[in-house]
Amino acid sequence: MASRDEPAKAGGNGKREAFYEKIDKSNMTALWTVLGSLITREPKSACRPFGWRFDAIREAMVEAGALITAKEAERRVLVLENPGLRGQSKITTSLYAGVQLVLPGEVAPAHRHSQSALRLVLEGKGAHTAVEGEKVMMSPGDFIITPSMTWHDHGNETDEPIYWLDGLDIPLVQFLDASFLEHLGADEQPITRPNGDSLARYGSNLLPVDFHPSAASPTSPVFWYPYARSREALDQLARAQDWDPCHGLRLRYVNPATGEHAMPTMATFLQLLPGGFATRRYRCTDATVFACLEGGGRSRIGEETIEWGPRDIFVAPSWFPVSHEAEAESVLFSFSDRPVQEKLGLWREDRGNG
Amino acid sequence: MASRDEPAKAGGNGKREAFYEKIDKSNMTALWTVLGSLITREPKSACRPFGWRFDAIREAMVEAGALITAKEAERRVLVLENPGLRGQSKITTSLYAGVQLVLPGEVAPAHRHSQSALRLVLEGKGAHTAVEGEKVMMSPGDFIITPSMTWHDHGNETDEPIYWLDGLDIPLVQFLDASFLEHLGADEQPITRPNGDSLARYGSNLLPVDFHPSAASPTSPVFWYPYARSREALDQLARAQDWDPCHGLRLRYVNPATGEHAMPTMATFLQLLPGGFATRRYRCTDATVFACLEGGGRSRIGEETIEWGPRDIFVAPSWFPVSHEAEAESVLFSFSDRPVQEKLGLWREDRGNG
Amino acid sequence: MASRDEPAKAGGNGKREAFYEKIDKSNMTALWTVLGSLITREPKSACRPFGWRFDAIREAMVEAGALITAKEAERRVLVLENPGLRGQSKITTSLYAGVQLVLPGEVAPAHRHSQSALRLVLEGKGAHTAVEGEKVMMSPGDFIITPSMTWHDHGNETDEPIYWLDGLDIPLVQFLDASFLEHLGADEQPITRPNGDSLARYGSNLLPVDFHPSAASPTSPVFWYPYARSREALDQLARAQDWDPCHGLRLRYVNPATGEHAMPTMATFLQLLPGGFATRRYRCTDATVFACLEGGGRSRIGEETIEWGPRDIFVAPSWFPVSHEAEAESVLFSFSDRPVQEKLGLWREDRGNG
Amino acid sequence: MASRDEPAKAGGNGKREAFYEKIDKSNMTALWTVLGSLITREPKSACRPFGWRFDAIREAMVEAGALITAKEAERRVLVLENPGLRGQSKITTSLYAGVQLVLPGEVAPAHRHSQSALRLVLEGKGAHTAVEGEKVMMSPGDFIITPSMTWHDHGNETDEPIYWLDGLDIPLVQFLDASFLEHLGADEQPITRPNGDSLARYGSNLLPVDFHPSAASPTSPVFWYPYARSREALDQLARAQDWDPCHGLRLRYVNPATGEHAMPTMATFLQLLPGGFATRRYRCTDATVFACLEGGGRSRIGEETIEWGPRDIFVAPSWFPVSHEAEAESVLFSFSDRPVQEKLGLWREDRGNG
Repeated sequence: MASRDEPAKAGGNGKREAFYEKIDKSNMTALWTVLGSLITREPKSACRPFGWRFDAIREAMVEAGALITAKEAERRVLVLENPGLRGQSKITTSLYAGVQLVLPGEVAPAHRHSQSALRLVLEGKGAHTAVEGEKVMMSPGDFIITPSMTWHDHGNETDEPIYWLDGLDIPLVQFLDASFLEHLGADEQPITRPNGDSLARYGSNLLPVDFHPSAASPTSPVFWYPYARSREALDQLARAQDWDPCHGLRLRYVNPATGEHAMPTMATFLQLLPGGFATRRYRCTDATVFACLEGGGRSRIGEETIEWGPRDIFVAPSWFPVSHEAEAESVLFSFSDRPVQEKLGLWREDRGNG
Repeated sequence: MASRDEPAKAGGNGKREAFYEKIDKSNMTALWTVLGSLITREPKSACRPFGWRFDAIREAMVEAGALITAKEAERRVLVLENPGLRGQSKITTSLYAGVQLVLPGEVAPAHRHSQSALRLVLEGKGAHTAVEGEKVMMSPGDFIITPSMTWHDHGNETDEPIYWLDGLDIPLVQFLDASFLEHLGADEQPITRPNGDSLARYGSNLLPVDFHPSAASPTSPVFWYPYARSREALDQLARAQDWDPCHGLRLRYVNPATGEHAMPTMATFLQLLPGGFATRRYRCTDATVFACLEGGGRSRIGEETIEWGPRDIFVAPSWFPVSHEAEAESVLFSFSDRPVQEKLGLWREDRGNG
Repeated sequence: MASRDEPAKAGGNGKREAFYEKIDKSNMTALWTVLGSLITREPKSACRPFGWRFDAIREAMVEAGALITAKEAERRVLVLENPGLRGQSKITTSLYAGVQLVLPGEVAPAHRHSQSALRLVLEGKGAHTAVEGEKVMMSPGDFIITPSMTWHDHGNETDEPIYWLDGLDIPLVQFLDASFLEHLGADEQPITRPNGDSLARYGSNLLPVDFHPSAASPTSPVFWYPYARSREALDQLARAQDWDPCHGLRLRYVNPATGEHAMPTMATFLQLLPGGFATRRYRCTDATVFACLEGGGRSRIGEETIEWGPRDIFVAPSWFPVSHEAEAESVLFSFSDRPVQEKLGLWREDRGNG
Repeated sequence: MASRDEPAKAGGNGKREAFYEKIDKSNMTALWTVLGSLITREPKSACRPFGWRFDAIREAMVEAGALITAKEAERRVLVLENPGLRGQSKITTSLYAGVQLVLPGEVAPAHRHSQSALRLVLEGKGAHTAVEGEKVMMSPGDFIITPSMTWHDHGNETDEPIYWLDGLDIPLVQFLDASFLEHLGADEQPITRPNGDSLARYGSNLLPVDFHPSAASPTSPVFWYPYARSREALDQLARAQDWDPCHGLRLRYVNPATGEHAMPTMATFLQLLPGGFATRRYRCTDATVFACLEGGGRSRIGEETIEWGPRDIFVAPSWFPVSHEAEAESVLFSFSDRPVQEKLGLWREDRGNG
């Protein structure tokens, strides 16, 4: 017997099957045979909770470092694939994540593409990312953006390897069929502005008198959010002792020229949990990737418990209840597709209080 | 030899393959083996140009009408599946289209869901759609919205069948993992406002003095755009004889409370082509579904030519060059995911003039 | 003895007076001697409630028609001066109102200025206003905008005089010291678009596909709001019988490309009061000019009662309680500086219900 | 003979004069007798260029300090009156400026009002301003906002006097007839948040995850812009050697939650001029008040030349050409009503390059 959500696919002495076969030839399908899987009562995808320990990632990356150069690989990255979405290069249904390694002396050559990328430095200090003529020196915890269609390249002139988390909207751009890519034809782009110029110019609660943000380029003109400054803000705010039951103290990175999320397609967050703090179970429709920057603890995601410490990465699918328990004072970075859902009127959260 | 876009997957005497196998167990993949298919130089999907003649659709629908009731089916719809995306209930990579039939005396019962839907009446007059307590009587060419999470039901109290085109953002909501659905538990919702109230209240270049559009519900409060009024606007504007080489005379339906697209996830357009007019080849990143309301002609889409007349439906994939040639004065309705791409900074067009 | 709001101006054996005299020479004043009049507990200006009967205005205008031509006068207008603000050409502290007469065969020559103007036709039919290359034929009740810095001229090719209400932001632009004016050097501007083009193009719940509203020109691209259409909306909405206790049924004219007020500096409203309806006392910080289009009744404004009938004009100062009583079904047009106050975070209302 | 802009007031053998007298009794005036002064070809007010040397202000303030306490005065301020607008408590047509002195041990008691205020510390260090439960310690060059309708009080617990520049929108609020004022009934408001909380919470390129800026309170939630941080931004940006011919290096203070000006009614700017730099003559419609924070030089404003050094204040009227010449490296703070003009579509500049 057909359930409410799914009318009888078959019936009428095989007449329906014959009909389905016939219309199939005209590139048509009967909605009632698939409706229940297309429009679900609640979010329901193959995406699963999962965690990657950084030690394991690093071990694999060291091996990768011996197998291929950054230049040959264009980007030497190990993709973190959601166990429920294998073969799709996705960490959630809409987002991609990977860990990138640049060895001393290496260069990841200049290109640009419609995909937006975030970089969160996990280990190593002093390598650089160049964006639109400006170089930034990367330190652990720094959050760096390479905006859609801006030239970017990476290089490591230090004597230690650097590892960072890459978050990109690759699946989203693929889904929208809007990918463009160009290679500069040179390892490095010319440098035309002093280091730190963008942060000073756009990120000091001032803006150039004649600057107007463009709807066509909605990414933050600040592309470097140094951890030192963000961490200092968390420290200052912790003094107010005003903890949110679901989040502890959670901030979102913004485009200071608009107050919008720093990137149009991905939200990025920084979160402080005091030692011993346990959050209330919370769920939202933006599947979220977390990376631990300091401390340690565990998160309950649906029926799974994931332990985490510095540099570990884990993912919570859409609408799965999430709660965190911090053993020591902990800092979590996270990202999701929330700006997309907000702009489309689709985002929803459940704070578990009613 | 590896191309520029795709470094050698294999190499080093099988060491790479062994590595790929090993990391696979930890839910990791080497980016360089897939990068070329993830970030492409130009949009590149399986979506294909295709056209459906309405006569064929109607013939199949008449048969469907005998096989299943609207109530059993919940919605008696034949999905138009893109030939390049079979089995996915998609007409483009991100959108769904189908044709719905409601027979005299039938009801499509009240439900609501996060998916937004557009209805374009193809044939039949006088059946109704009810949205949020208001009924609208449907006529050919009328464009009707059932916004995200609003109760809606359809009924036909006339003595002729009604056919309309459904356009929904089902694949998008599925991709974002943000589907919610509720059934009202009754065939029809209670009617609390006079017919035509919303159009008068919000669509007369006036707004209620205390009305403020909500960022959380970005859909137009006008949910009925009668063809008579839109057609009259086209007629009036045709007098200016100011034809766009790519589009003839093309307007987009808007939310008059914001000037944004009428729906947050789908753009909808109405377009007049004088008899004999041929448009310049044009391409854009929003794959577009067209439906002919009047006239007839043909469109060249990439390498394909599609003939169309009244009520025929055809689809142009992302970034395929499109040109139209109207034999008689023609009116085309169309829809796409352009608002999504615009909000994310991804939309791009090529007017073929440079 | 000094009140709380005003410290002793004098004191200290004349030392203060001596001090005031001394600093006066350096273009300085002691704030404490004037603070109480600068920052008041509530709005407190010289603006007074007042009403002008149209019969009296017309009588004066007929006389003016014999004294000066429209062309010699540039605009043959009688300014309605608030009795509390005589000599300042103001009807409220920030706005100007007047009644304009164009006789058969006359022309008010083309000019443009930074001041925005609204026209509300009071009597006469078929004279025209031309704006930016498009002519509009004026009928009673029509609301017409001549936006900031757009060329405009008026002409009367009929055989009856036309009278309309002019509302301008003259005092505001004067206050901001931002007035610019140019004369075209011709009576009439060239006509380049068919009559009715703008209304069809921007005011039909559709917008041209490549049109984007400009922050620099925030006025509605629809410059003609015919009374027939607005009145029809009121009629339709009256069927819902959903009367606001303070306003009856009150709509605001909008820019359909943004949902904002039709003009950046002036709000315009249209309001239906059923016969016998009496509104609750209401006050707001935007002093408001009312013009009766149909019906008749009286308004209580502060301690004054003003009787009104068709074409009569009256003004309610900021923060004065206002209530209306309609004898017959009445339509009131009104305008104020509310958009300015809203944008600056200053607007406040009191619905008298708490 | 009447000029183009001003038709003959008199004429017709005294008939016109008789008419003017008659309509005057009905609160009407003939527009053509005043039009030329209401709508001018260019901005044309009584506002004049003028400069106040801080030494003279301080001398007067010291004397004021002996004549009245901060508490008795409510605010011990000397108003800087534009010489062309005497008796109106205005420094420009729309803005107010004054210099405030709080002596050691004094308190300026808590109140709130619809007027927005900016404070720019000129001399003295360590006194405080409290806003909405948070205290800020004031240092020279700091820019502090007391937003519309927020409780604020000032106190000086140090052993040195503090002087700051007050800029308020008093004339604007008066003009719009929208003034509200309340006294708390206590010298100081209760302190509920740690010092520096707002700057960390909203001014670190991050925002609280659940914070949404409100259209009704458009002022920056950051109310303290410490000079140390702003000066550091200027220093960093000076390294780019990218000088604007009209402005040197000029930034505007912003609300980082929206990218808009920090206050809805007043723009605030910070500007660096290298020693020896001379700017090109520039004019704009926002009359501007300048205060020198460092360096020295002179400005040519219309036909006047004004010399300035640290803490000196000067004013440039609307549309007067302004050029600066810096003798030593100089920093200028400035403020104007530009946000008002921008929002109303009235702002205009002339960079002198065409």
